[in-house]
Amino acid sequence: MRVFICGFGTIGQGITEAIMMKEEFFLKRYGKNVSIVGAMDSKSYVIDQNGLDPKSLLDRKKKTGKVGDKDYEVPSKVMDMVEFDVLIENTPTDVKTGGVGLENITYALNHGIDVVTVNKGPLALKYKEIMDLAKEKGCIIGYEGSVGGAMPIIDLCLYDLAGEKIKSIRGIFNGTCNYILSKMDNGQPFEQALREAQQQGYAETDPTSDIEGYDSACKVVILANSVFGRNVTFNDVDITGITSINADAVALARANGMVIRLIGEVSPTKLEVSPRLIPKGHPLSIPGTLNVAEISTELAGPIVISGRGAGRLETASAIISDLVGILDKRFGE
Amino acid sequence: MRVFICGFGTIGQGITEAIMMKEEFFLKRYGKNVSIVGAMDSKSYVIDQNGLDPKSLLDRKKKTGKVGDKDYEVPSKVMDMVEFDVLIENTPTDVKTGGVGLENITYALNHGIDVVTVNKGPLALKYKEIMDLAKEKGCIIGYEGSVGGAMPIIDLCLYDLAGEKIKSIRGIFNGTCNYILSKMDNGQPFEQALREAQQQGYAETDPTSDIEGYDSACKVVILANSVFGRNVTFNDVDITGITSINADAVALARANGMVIRLIGEVSPTKLEVSPRLIPKGHPLSIPGTLNVAEISTELAGPIVISGRGAGRLETASAIISDLVGILDKRFGE
Repeated sequence: MRVFICGFGTIGQGITEAIMMKEEFFLKRYGKNVSIVGAMDSKSYVIDQNGLDPKSLLDRKKKTGKVGDKDYEVPSKVMDMVEFDVLIENTPTDVKTGGVGLENITYALNHGIDVVTVNKGPLALKYKEIMDLAKEKGCIIGYEGSVGGAMPIIDLCLYDLAGEKIKSIRGIFNGTCNYILSKMDNGQPFEQALREAQQQGYAETDPTSDIEGYDSACKVVILANSVFGRNVTFNDVDITGITSINADAVALARANGMVIRLIGEVSPTKLEVSPRLIPKGHPLSIPGTLNVAEISTELAGPIVISGRGAGRLETASAIISDLVGILDKRFGE
Repeated sequence: MRVFICGFGTIGQGITEAIMMKEEFFLKRYGKNVSIVGAMDSKSYVIDQNGLDPKSLLDRKKKTGKVGDKDYEVPSKVMDMVEFDVLIENTPTDVKTGGVGLENITYALNHGIDVVTVNKGPLALKYKEIMDLAKEKGCIIGYEGSVGGAMPIIDLCLYDLAGEKIKSIRGIFNGTCNYILSKMDNGQPFEQALREAQQQGYAETDPTSDIEGYDSACKVVILANSVFGRNVTFNDVDITGITSINADAVALARANGMVIRLIGEVSPTKLEVSPRLIPKGHPLSIPGTLNVAEISTELAGPIVISGRGAGRLETASAIISDLVGILDKRFGE
């Protein structure tokens, strides 16, 4: 059970830590451990067919800023040098071209290697191509962590609600925007709330992808393709971000018992991200950095799930659940 | 894909209706349909190895109060007369002995027949024995609908969160009590709220099982055994119902920004059902007949799921998801 970790930022470090924490679990479930045989960040790589020590990887990254001790030019040439069963892909997302993440995923599938990824860009641009390739090569690809972080919405829709007709999903898929809007509920102006989100580490220095709704848009695309069997890409989403929400709008909402939330909505016909008025107390009025989704179903009615939408170990939880799904199938439980 | 339906009350009728609604889905997924070859209620039975017409079953039950046109004495002798792949068991629950439900489930497993059940009694009394027998006979047993109705908490914990260490589950597992307590939030006395629940069809004529916490207790037992791998029964639960909650207690809670909710809690060491003070706005302060569960995990933090805890088609949704799980394994996807 050999994995290669591409991308060694917060998520890559989180999954490495989680693999360490789950040593006993893997041993008990499979009689053997998960072995990291390669790790790569944007600057460096390290490989060892006999397995790398996770703790050393984390220590070196912390000390030197690099996970490896060697430089590289082409990721695929590094992956060529070692044999592995699962690629864990979490390089920085690129919603314009799919970036290196798309290259890495394509490389793995072409070599018959299963993939777990949280990389939204490739999935939001080339979902059908990736799934078709995986099917052709007999590979499994897990991407639970790409939508809603630790909130297991994809498994929930595809497996737990198997047989249900899912009519629509409406949800909050970006914790940064929700943090800002929650602060605005209490009277803070947009700029101040954004600055605070940045200080707290919830928003990037360049917050465009979050506040313009692009990140949420990637997530509704992934849901549209996986849950609704549609064939859409990022460019098909009707997107409005939260940059034009001002204190007056929030105050007017409040006076009517409402809050403003950035809602992603997907159904067989809808594909939209926009700020909406939500009644206080409604499941979608949730404050803070949580993610939440309301799944409307034919038989069960509405099912609501919420969880932390981001975070080092939170995202690792989703990756681990995909990894276990693959290992169960490949190495039998 | 032949099923036998034992118990033809609300749930039995709901699943029959759902099987009709899902005809197209089954055909598309498996290339064949689900055929009901037998149905039984407490008074009558009907069988046909070539398949029964679901609509006729529902019509006869409605008109005559009986699903079949023949009487029987011993259920197993009826099931002996027809061949089937899955038993759908939803006879009235009996938490003292396991009742006819336990007999039917045992019969099916002993004959190598897979089982889907929402019957809490057998699972709350003989969980380990039932699972051991299923394992010995190579059978699958699904019981998602036995906890939380349409809220897919068991699949969520066992599959979506595979690899997670689940630290505890706290939840509202009885919609009747929650309806009564929500009415009391608004100042209604207990007796009036109970009467209203009965008028609305949420509470039985004899509400003991709900208001004394016995129904919730069955559910925490099932979670303890399935999610936490414990080996406990109904008699191990520390149970306090809601009959001693009065208007003063509710008013005092309200004055402190709290509500009273009947909470089931299960962890590796806890097994309890009791009324608790919950802050307003907390996920477990949910009003009405919904069920909700807060799952505390090691990596992902808290994950909250809610859905309708009961209802004809809502429970059928859980049964269908278990049925699909079995059919996927047996008849390939």
